[in-house]
Amino acid sequence: MDMISIIEDKKQGRALTKEQIEFFADGAARHTIPDYQLAALLMAIRLNSMDARETADLTMAMAASGDMLSPDVGGVPVDKHSTGGVGDTTTLVLAPLVAACGGKVLKMSGRGLGHTGGTVDKLESIPGMVVDLPEDKFLQIVRTVGCAVAGKSAQLAPADKTLYALRDVTATVDSIPLIVSSILSKKFAAGAKAIVLDVKTGSGALMPTLEDSITLAKAMVDIGAHAGRSIVAVVSGMEEPLGSHVGNALEVKEAIDILAGRVEGPLKTVSLFLGSQMLIASGLAKDELQAQAMLKEALVSGRGLQKFKEMIAAQGGDGRVCDDVGLLPKAPVIRPMLAREEGYLAHVNGTALGLAAQRMGAGRIEKDDVIDPSVGFVMEKRIGDFIRKGDVVCILHARDEASAQAAEDRIAAALTLSPCPAPKARLLYALVTPQGVSHLSE
Amino acid sequence: MDMISIIEDKKQGRALTKEQIEFFADGAARHTIPDYQLAALLMAIRLNSMDARETADLTMAMAASGDMLSPDVGGVPVDKHSTGGVGDTTTLVLAPLVAACGGKVLKMSGRGLGHTGGTVDKLESIPGMVVDLPEDKFLQIVRTVGCAVAGKSAQLAPADKTLYALRDVTATVDSIPLIVSSILSKKFAAGAKAIVLDVKTGSGALMPTLEDSITLAKAMVDIGAHAGRSIVAVVSGMEEPLGSHVGNALEVKEAIDILAGRVEGPLKTVSLFLGSQMLIASGLAKDELQAQAMLKEALVSGRGLQKFKEMIAAQGGDGRVCDDVGLLPKAPVIRPMLAREEGYLAHVNGTALGLAAQRMGAGRIEKDDVIDPSVGFVMEKRIGDFIRKGDVVCILHARDEASAQAAEDRIAAALTLSPCPAPKARLLYALVTPQGVSHLSE
Repeated sequence: MDMISIIEDKKQGRALTKEQIEFFADGAARHTIPDYQLAALLMAIRLNSMDARETADLTMAMAASGDMLSPDVGGVPVDKHSTGGVGDTTTLVLAPLVAACGGKVLKMSGRGLGHTGGTVDKLESIPGMVVDLPEDKFLQIVRTVGCAVAGKSAQLAPADKTLYALRDVTATVDSIPLIVSSILSKKFAAGAKAIVLDVKTGSGALMPTLEDSITLAKAMVDIGAHAGRSIVAVVSGMEEPLGSHVGNALEVKEAIDILAGRVEGPLKTVSLFLGSQMLIASGLAKDELQAQAMLKEALVSGRGLQKFKEMIAAQGGDGRVCDDVGLLPKAPVIRPMLAREEGYLAHVNGTALGLAAQRMGAGRIEKDDVIDPSVGFVMEKRIGDFIRKGDVVCILHARDEASAQAAEDRIAAALTLSPCPAPKARLLYALVTPQGVSHLSE
Repeated sequence: MDMISIIEDKKQGRALTKEQIEFFADGAARHTIPDYQLAALLMAIRLNSMDARETADLTMAMAASGDMLSPDVGGVPVDKHSTGGVGDTTTLVLAPLVAACGGKVLKMSGRGLGHTGGTVDKLESIPGMVVDLPEDKFLQIVRTVGCAVAGKSAQLAPADKTLYALRDVTATVDSIPLIVSSILSKKFAAGAKAIVLDVKTGSGALMPTLEDSITLAKAMVDIGAHAGRSIVAVVSGMEEPLGSHVGNALEVKEAIDILAGRVEGPLKTVSLFLGSQMLIASGLAKDELQAQAMLKEALVSGRGLQKFKEMIAAQGGDGRVCDDVGLLPKAPVIRPMLAREEGYLAHVNGTALGLAAQRMGAGRIEKDDVIDPSVGFVMEKRIGDFIRKGDVVCILHARDEASAQAAEDRIAAALTLSPCPAPKARLLYALVTPQGVSHLSE
């Protein structure tokens, strides 16, 4: 087996064998294959693709390139993954709710290099919170509390770590087999038996068209069938941030507000839909009706918020934030941004909004940048709303006035007002299961 | 300008701009772009190709990545390049003949990593011969003698050096724009104003089909038109070694035998055809009839052999080999290989023959292997010949009997005998000039 013949085969458009795929995944993990050969192969895969069998083999080979956890967590280990989105805090809402219904939510999450922090960066805004957990500690919390959210262990899927870093710098990110295997290999290695995927669609998403997003969703669901895992995928919109809060501590606050029953809205709607799929995939509910009823009961009774508190405490954090969000870090400058003109909010450039938050200090530009947990903004308007001149568009949480002013300019540029009424953004598009695609109505 | 967007553009199938091409060629030469990004780009070029304008820009950018010689050699600097072939010694025959007719042959040649040595390896079998010449010394010999053959200077087209090494290990050798730019950038940098290309076709050649070979030939001729150089290409066959001698000193001996008028055959025929194109491209002959007459006169008069002697002496070698080929290195074991069966010689696996010579010590397996100049073999039979059991198939020149025996087995396996009469192998297929393609009859 040699790397040149593997590249040659994929270059010629031939399907790679399981042995060839295991060879290069192993070489990527152990750094025995030079980066330039992996880069050439990644481009050949990007341009000539891989079929479902190859993609499943690649997923399993990357999963098996490091530790493979077989967690005994007292139930079906269930995970959830979103393919991106600004202000998407569903994990922090649904993990405690699903755990409160008896689910065993095991969530390892990368740190974000991009607009805003990743889920673990958000959690770190809670005083004392530890997200870099050893594997055994992580699994113990899942077992006892019912949910844990930790940074990805370096021992899991090291092949993916090598390939992901290379894809980023070789313009080979946008390949369905590479996206699918990267996402799922980590989930498989962490021991998830049931996985609910939230595939975003729309401008700024990995897949801009609904058709492509459904193709990606199907590809991932197919791998589950190949690999003996229960995978379903929800295709959801990302025309604007799902929650109103953008920024690390701000997003934690919003999750707590929802769990406390103080706030309604799209973030809650989507979290409950994804959470219900997790309960079904875990075998804890027989259908969506039952699952939604269970989740709502957990919410209304306060058991969801209680679970979040327990998880925070188990991970070393100050659980009192659940009772008093004032304990979260606060930005020195908090002030409204007022509308400069009037019209219907017709379009939101999510990428530009994310960039505005990043520049305020909420996200990393370079890998080693330190995130400021307190900064960001809270949107007061959503697509479809009519905005009058002088209305509060959002509340800025900034380091200083200069930063607030810069953010204001960026946010203003990200919003498109129109004289004509604009429809609200659609949240949920489709549910993809091994049985097929159901288009969702709202 | 950044490398990721260049890769992205080529991945999407877009034509790269001149500035983008200059950016990555320069980065390849100065090692400021990581190999993995270059490798991804090479694969994207291999799969999405480049048009004639891009290929011309790449050729010029690679040429300009190092020294650009503007040689004053007292005439039109003319070069010749062959795309491969075992036992192809045309350079050693035609360079002195063209020089004897007033041509200025400037030939820089790589060292072979493959079946048999490159042209400079062959020349090094002449006692005292120096092929690593400084650029000024090299040009001075071209000016005074009329021809010089030297190893490629490291100062010429360094971008090609980087990219060529990467292509070899990333399965991206077989790309017309990359082949064309690699070959021509070195010729342009060395100052050639007229170039005659010998594009091989057939099994074992870079391009196996005649159609593909003509496509490659046309692509190279087109670049000449873009770059203001006079380029013509001959498409010739490589069904079997062109000369009968395979091995370094053996091939020098065969060239001398032809220049001395002692030997006829395909190597002479093709050398005279290529040489005549060089005289036409140099403006020294108006058509092939005149050019062939000039070359034949140089051959018959002995002026060609005399030029070879002068070139050898100018490069520090012992010119007496031209009068006494016995001064060339001799192998310890010289013995015939006899036919084990009978039939018409229908097919010769040139790659396998080359490998047989390489394993005898005539070529390198690893880059730093030392070549044995004395070893190889002399074929006594050509395709179409009838071979009787016990006939001499070839004369082996080996280090020892074990090596001779191993070569005998390899050579026997490379020859296919048939009970049916087989046609002779075709030598010349087509001549491609800026005016179009002429199919050649024999």
